[in-house]
Amino acid sequence: MFDKQLAKKAAENLKTIREKKPLIHNITNFVVMNYTANILLACGASPVMAHAQEEVEEMVSFAGALVLNIGTLTPYWIDSMLKAGKKANELNVPIILDPVGSGATKLRTDSAKQLINDLSVKVIRGNASEVLSLAQEGSKTKGVDSIHTVDEATEAALTLAKELNTTLAITGEVDLITDGERTYRVSNGHELMGFVTGTGCAATSIIGAFLAVDDDSVEATTTALAYFGLAGEQGASRAKAPGSFQTASLDALFTIDGRQLEEGAKIQIV
Amino acid sequence: MFDKQLAKKAAENLKTIREKKPLIHNITNFVVMNYTANILLACGASPVMAHAQEEVEEMVSFAGALVLNIGTLTPYWIDSMLKAGKKANELNVPIILDPVGSGATKLRTDSAKQLINDLSVKVIRGNASEVLSLAQEGSKTKGVDSIHTVDEATEAALTLAKELNTTLAITGEVDLITDGERTYRVSNGHELMGFVTGTGCAATSIIGAFLAVDDDSVEATTTALAYFGLAGEQGASRAKAPGSFQTASLDALFTIDGRQLEEGAKIQIV
Amino acid sequence: MFDKQLAKKAAENLKTIREKKPLIHNITNFVVMNYTANILLACGASPVMAHAQEEVEEMVSFAGALVLNIGTLTPYWIDSMLKAGKKANELNVPIILDPVGSGATKLRTDSAKQLINDLSVKVIRGNASEVLSLAQEGSKTKGVDSIHTVDEATEAALTLAKELNTTLAITGEVDLITDGERTYRVSNGHELMGFVTGTGCAATSIIGAFLAVDDDSVEATTTALAYFGLAGEQGASRAKAPGSFQTASLDALFTIDGRQLEEGAKIQIV
Repeated sequence: MFDKQLAKKAAENLKTIREKKPLIHNITNFVVMNYTANILLACGASPVMAHAQEEVEEMVSFAGALVLNIGTLTPYWIDSMLKAGKKANELNVPIILDPVGSGATKLRTDSAKQLINDLSVKVIRGNASEVLSLAQEGSKTKGVDSIHTVDEATEAALTLAKELNTTLAITGEVDLITDGERTYRVSNGHELMGFVTGTGCAATSIIGAFLAVDDDSVEATTTALAYFGLAGEQGASRAKAPGSFQTASLDALFTIDGRQLEEGAKIQIV
Repeated sequence: MFDKQLAKKAAENLKTIREKKPLIHNITNFVVMNYTANILLACGASPVMAHAQEEVEEMVSFAGALVLNIGTLTPYWIDSMLKAGKKANELNVPIILDPVGSGATKLRTDSAKQLINDLSVKVIRGNASEVLSLAQEGSKTKGVDSIHTVDEATEAALTLAKELNTTLAITGEVDLITDGERTYRVSNGHELMGFVTGTGCAATSIIGAFLAVDDDSVEATTTALAYFGLAGEQGASRAKAPGSFQTASLDALFTIDGRQLEEGAKIQIV
Repeated sequence: MFDKQLAKKAAENLKTIREKKPLIHNITNFVVMNYTANILLACGASPVMAHAQEEVEEMVSFAGALVLNIGTLTPYWIDSMLKAGKKANELNVPIILDPVGSGATKLRTDSAKQLINDLSVKVIRGNASEVLSLAQEGSKTKGVDSIHTVDEATEAALTLAKELNTTLAITGEVDLITDGERTYRVSNGHELMGFVTGTGCAATSIIGAFLAVDDDSVEATTTALAYFGLAGEQGASRAKAPGSFQTASLDALFTIDGRQLEEGAKIQIV
């Protein structure tokens, strides 16, 4: 039922992260900086947060991936993201974008679209509304008004991924990953994840760590989300409320080994 | 001994928050953003942090309440608060202010007073020094020099609430809530709360969630503080040091049900 | 084997902090603000985070120590640090600097050096690369390229401490503290500390608390690091993964008493 090859690759990617400890450069929001850094450390990667325009180009040159997250954006931060992103593109450092709140305010939608237009972004991860708000005017994608589930979003996502020439990850109860050609679903995870702030942002950074060791954007993203969701499942087996759940999930990211991940990954080819 | 009607209302308000999941727009300090967001999620509300002047008006238009907290203020952030606040007033979105450190530096005192003067603020929550520092020059309120306890602050608070035409919540070992006419005390809570940073800020955001579902500012504030204090009590019954106490209290906010709150609320009419 | 006099002083310093509750003014990075504040509260000190140029001078005038941390620096924040630092020097409030990432980007190295040149800094704490990157051009200190351990760094640190006329703390598996004359090693700690973000920054703030009650910079720093490392050891005896370890270590900072610290401090004179 679940794809065994990708489950195996998930385990391999995790092993490589723990061996290589790639530096993940995050330009992210204030709410999740601490949590994201701890998530990346637990996973085996090496996080850095740096947003000053005077240093982002230098910092990203050491990085295995660049994570851009607009959760508490201002124009200064978007400019920093553009500066870091252009350098990342020059150096072939993969970029992953988390368009937090795109579709909710004009600033967020416009900023997300600008980042996508001006940079070559490998992966975009968000919820269905966020991702589908990125369709350009005149897009073949339908509006998001009637789209509420990952299921309903699948067709729109396929079209949009091709238009944007990127990998899209729409996360929710089930995660959908597609580049318009290949499409996977990941059904790992637990509903308590929705009661911890920044779970989506953390997933994005974990995808960054997987991208740093796996050139195949679709597979890196899919395996990262299986790993992150499995940690949520393990956390929920030990804790029943958000505070202790967050702690237990963070522990699980650290303790999950290759065999557990290979056996626990719930990845399906669509 | 304790007021049963308000205890019942506390349970009703909590139930409504969990049903309606009101969006609480926070313009708050860097120290507590993550903690506050998790507190609001555990309570059942939906937090958003947004401070860019380009989007605060749009964001607050979706919100059930606007929380303003000056804990790591700069002039830019105060201007954002004013912009969001004016829009909130236009749309009748209730505003709650946490004047962190007012009285400690001129910037904080002046900024808090400007927010109060330029906006219609429904509730102000702080410790005794912070709240009483808000008295305007020529106020009938006595200075804060000789006021160290919630008890001593009661009379000054009644006068000040009338002058400012708002609800004041002075939190401490016992919480005092007054609009100058009605006055309540809440004796829920635990001393370990003082060893977790941002407990006061978190209380303010919880009041925001209760204001989003209860038009009566005094009752919304009083019931919110009983709920928040009860979570502290439950946390302290499970953990004896600040790290595990914070986790246990966060869990308690999530697990407390209506019956527990109705039975555990320690609200008294003064 | 371990120095008993300094172990005793560690216990005395901790007791004094818990009695006097010194205000520690932090101008620090976004990643660790919450964690640092909780660390200082657990230790018994009173944290404040304030960076606005309009208030830093006023705020630092109430403080027992000023902690400067460049982890998410921008030029505005460095200017705030300089402003607060000059006032601190005027008032003899001790300054401790955490040059996060110095050596990694020009902005960080230059900013750290500017702070050191323009201010009188009592203590600098970092890892070996960070601290040794602070050598001025023409310094007698060797470059950092060949220096990877605290052991290898010792000689360079002694020279640099004399040149900078300050106390250096190089933390790692074993911590090295020197002012160029007296040198100590602290071997408390646990490897899990490397999997929690901001552990180094937290150590810096704890040193700030000890500096607020102990005029002897070398002894304040050494005793602070023994205390902080012992909390890590106790945390690791209760938890085996980063999430629960962080909680348990924070608890330990709160529960460690004088006798435990005196018996557990692993301080050696070099």
